[in-house]
Amino acid sequence: MNKQIKVFAPATVANVACGFDVLGFALNEPGDEVILQTTDSNEVTLSKITGDGGKLPLDVSKNTAAAVIKHYLAHIGSRQGIDIQLHKRMPLGSGLGSSAASAVAGLFAVNELLGSPLTRAELLPFAMEGERIASGAAHADNVAPALLGGFVLVRSYNPLDIVSIPFPKDLVATVVHPQIEIRTEDARSILKKSILLKDAIQQWGNIGGLIAGLIQGDYDLIKRSLQDVIIEPVRSLLIPNFDKVKQAALESGALGCSISGSGPSIFALSNSLAIAGEIASAMRKELKVIGIDCDVYISPINNVGARVLGVQQEKGENLVFTHSSYAND
Amino acid sequence: MNKQIKVFAPATVANVACGFDVLGFALNEPGDEVILQTTDSNEVTLSKITGDGGKLPLDVSKNTAAAVIKHYLAHIGSRQGIDIQLHKRMPLGSGLGSSAASAVAGLFAVNELLGSPLTRAELLPFAMEGERIASGAAHADNVAPALLGGFVLVRSYNPLDIVSIPFPKDLVATVVHPQIEIRTEDARSILKKSILLKDAIQQWGNIGGLIAGLIQGDYDLIKRSLQDVIIEPVRSLLIPNFDKVKQAALESGALGCSISGSGPSIFALSNSLAIAGEIASAMRKELKVIGIDCDVYISPINNVGARVLGVQQEKGENLVFTHSSYAND
Repeated sequence: MNKQIKVFAPATVANVACGFDVLGFALNEPGDEVILQTTDSNEVTLSKITGDGGKLPLDVSKNTAAAVIKHYLAHIGSRQGIDIQLHKRMPLGSGLGSSAASAVAGLFAVNELLGSPLTRAELLPFAMEGERIASGAAHADNVAPALLGGFVLVRSYNPLDIVSIPFPKDLVATVVHPQIEIRTEDARSILKKSILLKDAIQQWGNIGGLIAGLIQGDYDLIKRSLQDVIIEPVRSLLIPNFDKVKQAALESGALGCSISGSGPSIFALSNSLAIAGEIASAMRKELKVIGIDCDVYISPINNVGARVLGVQQEKGENLVFTHSSYAND
Repeated sequence: MNKQIKVFAPATVANVACGFDVLGFALNEPGDEVILQTTDSNEVTLSKITGDGGKLPLDVSKNTAAAVIKHYLAHIGSRQGIDIQLHKRMPLGSGLGSSAASAVAGLFAVNELLGSPLTRAELLPFAMEGERIASGAAHADNVAPALLGGFVLVRSYNPLDIVSIPFPKDLVATVVHPQIEIRTEDARSILKKSILLKDAIQQWGNIGGLIAGLIQGDYDLIKRSLQDVIIEPVRSLLIPNFDKVKQAALESGALGCSISGSGPSIFALSNSLAIAGEIASAMRKELKVIGIDCDVYISPINNVGARVLGVQQEKGENLVFTHSSYAND
């Protein structure tokens, strides 16, 4: 009697201006869906990937979601057979945590299928392992918000210390994904290994201010603090017209605007859906001027993280979805 | 009809581990007292300094308190004559914001004498000017908490942006001041102008965690975050037996322990007066071992900042003090 589960894990914005490598937040959409099914074999198989334009490997050892599921099963000592279907509902290589969404969706799904032996927080190291497979570095600033939702501070990597940061409920993200490609490796290698102490001081003033502003719901403080004097000035060189896109966002009422993850996506935060829409139009326009198309996402901050969309207990029965909008997916 | 006012401004702990140059807090004691009296001349005079062991200049142009008062009077266009008595009730060159306490006490007093034309926040730039006179750099991380009380984040210097950070009310500071001398200039010059990006990332994780812990009253998070991987490892070389003093504090229940300002004072934070006392004994013992005496201060966080101790409206009348303990001072 095999079981099937459908899980969604959201796209995430990492770095968040002054929070390079330590802060991220989750979007309601886009994100990834996985459908996991228990099988009678002892194998992890990957039967289907959609939405990736044929770019992702079907090879179980190379696919992030499959690899983390195998790692998870070995850790808990299970020989359960699992078949994976991965439906990418978000762009790859966009700076929106695509590999994190796949890894988190897969892990959350397999953990649910097996009766939740691990907590969300305990799943985190496995998801980070997925990041290592995908990009060579076990970052937590995408996987942690994808798993837990909300704003997440990675206070420390060694030992791993993840802190959920309360935030004002009206906060909305506008994200534009320009149709250009930046490799994560390039975005990393453009950064210098050393920075000026005086710049670092500015940055920790801003991260302190941003955390205080988020917790206290002080939009003005959030606005003053959403500045990155270290990473953005370098990485923005890789994104055509970045300065004008940012300026357009700020002039449309954004609290702040910076690069999402390692780019090329650009995010802006604001405190209403209406303003978020205006920001989106203004940003899109500045990319259009130089002939670059973009995807646009407008989303409140996702306070849930990965979630179950539906479970099918026995073969042949109807799927019972927790969100009816996904029923006919 | 001349008027006299007595004002106290507290000692302060700047840097606060991971908050180099951006975070400070105020103590209840020690601190400085000034007595200001209006005079019939147009001059600012400095008639008396006590408690400085003869180290501070009586020259009005060189004394920090006198200089900032002159600067203040010029700014508001007043030719009021003022005589100053400065009573140092705290050690000089201790890393506890001695010059900040003098400047803030003087400014707060003259502003009160003249009917408070400026707010506390508006006095801040004048107090920073005092820091420039005293140490060559217009730092705000001592003067801001001395003026405003509590924990203060200097989010930005340009423009100046000072953010008061709520904190749990049980927080207590233990401060030991070893009887050795470190010049602020030496403590500055030992620092490198560049730091590793990976160290900076750790630091902004910790400052984010500390701010979140303070606001949310999460002692465990405060404890995990009170770490300085950049400044303390370098500056602690100037303080004999620092590592053992710190270890003793932590083993006695301190949430964290680091250098106060540019040293040589060492502060520890805890969440009860009883623990703070045990920490003090343990720290003192580790200094005693190598033959160094120290002053010890145990103080809840001062949430008031500079305050009026007493006002005398007319010559000959009795002083009416707001705190009777100071009446016979």
